[in-house]
Amino acid sequence: MTTSEAERSAMRRALSLAATPGVPLGPNPRVGCVLLAPDGTTIAEGFHRGAGTPHAEAAALAEAGAAARGATAVVSLEPCNHTGRTGPCSEALIAAGVVRVVFAQPDANPVAVGGAARLREAGVEVVGGEMIDEAQALNRVWSFSVAHRRPFVTWKFATTLDGRSAAADGTSRWVSSRAARIDTHRLRGLCDTMLVGTHTVEVDDPELTVRDEHDQPVAVQPLRAVMGLRDLPPGRRVFNDRAETVHLRTRDPEDALARLHALDRQHVFLEGGPSLAGAFLAAGLVDEVVTYVAPMLLGAGASAVADLGITTITDAVHLDVSDVTVLHGHDGEDTNVRLTMRPQLRRN
Amino acid sequence: MTTSEAERSAMRRALSLAATPGVPLGPNPRVGCVLLAPDGTTIAEGFHRGAGTPHAEAAALAEAGAAARGATAVVSLEPCNHTGRTGPCSEALIAAGVVRVVFAQPDANPVAVGGAARLREAGVEVVGGEMIDEAQALNRVWSFSVAHRRPFVTWKFATTLDGRSAAADGTSRWVSSRAARIDTHRLRGLCDTMLVGTHTVEVDDPELTVRDEHDQPVAVQPLRAVMGLRDLPPGRRVFNDRAETVHLRTRDPEDALARLHALDRQHVFLEGGPSLAGAFLAAGLVDEVVTYVAPMLLGAGASAVADLGITTITDAVHLDVSDVTVLHGHDGEDTNVRLTMRPQLRRN
Ligand SMILES: NC(=O)c1ccc[n+]([C@@H]2O[C@H](COP(=O)([O-])OP(=O)(O)OC[C@H]3O[C@@H](n4cnc5c(N)ncnc54)[C@H](OP(=O)(O)O)[C@@H]3O)[C@@H](O)[C@H]2O)c1
Ligand SMILES: NC(=O)c1ccc[n+]([C@@H]2O[C@H](COP(=O)([O-])OP(=O)(O)OC[C@H]3O[C@@H](n4cnc5c(N)ncnc54)[C@H](OP(=O)(O)O)[C@@H]3O)[C@@H](O)[C@H]2O)c1
Repeated sequence: MTTSEAERSAMRRALSLAATPGVPLGPNPRVGCVLLAPDGTTIAEGFHRGAGTPHAEAAALAEAGAAARGATAVVSLEPCNHTGRTGPCSEALIAAGVVRVVFAQPDANPVAVGGAARLREAGVEVVGGEMIDEAQALNRVWSFSVAHRRPFVTWKFATTLDGRSAAADGTSRWVSSRAARIDTHRLRGLCDTMLVGTHTVEVDDPELTVRDEHDQPVAVQPLRAVMGLRDLPPGRRVFNDRAETVHLRTRDPEDALARLHALDRQHVFLEGGPSLAGAFLAAGLVDEVVTYVAPMLLGAGASAVADLGITTITDAVHLDVSDVTVLHGHDGEDTNVRLTMRPQLRRN
Repeated sequence: MTTSEAERSAMRRALSLAATPGVPLGPNPRVGCVLLAPDGTTIAEGFHRGAGTPHAEAAALAEAGAAARGATAVVSLEPCNHTGRTGPCSEALIAAGVVRVVFAQPDANPVAVGGAARLREAGVEVVGGEMIDEAQALNRVWSFSVAHRRPFVTWKFATTLDGRSAAADGTSRWVSSRAARIDTHRLRGLCDTMLVGTHTVEVDDPELTVRDEHDQPVAVQPLRAVMGLRDLPPGRRVFNDRAETVHLRTRDPEDALARLHALDRQHVFLEGGPSLAGAFLAAGLVDEVVTYVAPMLLGAGASAVADLGITTITDAVHLDVSDVTVLHGHDGEDTNVRLTMRPQLRRN
């Protein structure tokens, strides 16, 4: 079945509604919806504003009222079929008298699945897959997490030009520049979980919160997760009341991600240390690598990346570079370079 | 004394003549000259085409012939005062009847110095310093070498993201991408000397020539210099007939640069190994650092940079980044990132 020019234009609009700035990235995907009259004119629009608020379809239907009868709903995600905090959108569309639904990305989420089938059953015309790539890119992490049933893992590390994270005497404040540290907080804020190993908590005592440029904690904080078997000293800052914290008493990266998935986590920001990151890398459970390179030479000191058990050059972990950004330093500060990469699938 | 609009415009032209593509970078600076009639119109132009060919002023005077009488010479470098392979330009300008000379950069070269004074003595009006910054940038390395009485040193190294130059078993072909290797040959070709330590010659047996994209040696090859006390096996490729080679039997970087300066060398491309580069860095004799970062992780293996004796973070060598270039890989090759930097002066 094909779509009309009005429907394709409405889908572009739905996607841009979905991407409205300020929509918090919670466990739910970003979704936009446009209701079209039979003549192709817009009746109403809606988008999802985050967990606990109406779905995009519900928002558009509320705005349309009785005008929704006979309308076509154009929506960036397949309407859901489950009763969560809001009722199933498929039922709401049917009840409102919508006669046709055009959606972009199918909803693979096991609890939501089946919306298209339910609509067809009720006699609604359904077309799926329109602009699916754009819709998937919009919810890159959510789509990954639904498809793989685990959170997407971004591993971040900072390094000198010569691969060091600290000097020989252990001093490391600061390898990366202020601009890089501010940028790191921005990236932390795009994730819903921060993960470190027990040893980093013991040694560095990081707070693991997201802070703004004035070093003030932002309103919505990601979950803090600490991974490892040992007991942690209770006074560590990771246990303060500025955010939630879980101690994942396991050394199995797959197990840790399963537990975080069960907690509705979709995007883990792995901040080290080197041992934990090495274990995730070895397990093939790093999906993205963000590296801040500081134009500094130490010649000795702690390595930024742990021994990965690689002995010969053909076994090196290759990464595909998706972005290189120069973070200019101010007032004589170093210029840092941020590389964003994806590990290539191992040949073996 | 001020310059006229016609003279300033002629200086811009002289600078662009000096930078004519294809002029070989030899021991001589790039220079351009424009002769102006009293009414400001151009009589003749000239530029220097490399060692053994006429200086820019001589080329312009030859073109002008008798028309040079009463003219103003606008030249990007102070006219020389010495008899080299060509006679002194100051005398040639006087003999031709030039009445005024406007130049950009003073010639600090001890053998050439004194041209402006000689001209004034003969009654010629002389204005120096017009567009001096542009002229110095044009002959960045020559100016440095004349001022410091030693070659400018560019240290190049390739590294993985985690600071390795080879895997644990010693394999290192290739850390950097094909695009980075081609780029390295381009940079080699801009220098007049390539320098490595004896150990690199023993272990890697590099040819140290400049080769084009088809791996063919280019016509003009830099000098190959190997530094260190030990005798070298005669069969090493660095001793083949594709270029000249010197063995600098010293471990003192300052001494090595003095010997290269005596050989008219102005730009050393230091390609390692780590020990030799570390010694130059520690001596404060690295003027530029070019690093190719390969998006690859090894976790272990040889460090790209030697132990520099730095024990605490505040002693790190900081570099000012002047350029970041992304070298895109083709056919699935890695994307490499090239950073060009200048070491900051040490605080101590
Ligand atoms: N360059 C950077 O960006 C960066 C970032 C963070 C930290 N660091 C530095 O890294 C140092 C800490 O290094 P680290 O590597 O020991 O810290 P780490 O990775 O944070 O902690 C290692 C501990 O994590 C636990 N763990 C859980 N699962 C594991 C697994 N699969 N594999 C290995 N360990 C696992 C183990 O503790 P249990 O015995 O409790 O199971 C292990 O001892 C600190 O000095 C810190 O400053 C650097
Ligand atoms: N990552 C890269 O871009 C790169 C580039 C080149 C080489 N490499 C690797 O580096 C390894 C060789 O390492 P290396 O550091 O031993 O090689 P190197 O720096 O080329 O040679 C070291 C030797 O240079 C001589 N030397 C002269 N002056 C010196 C000084 N001031 N300080 C120290 N040494 C001085 C000494 O030999 P005498 O006893 O003869 O005086 C010394 O043993 C090879 O495996 C090679 O593959 C890597």
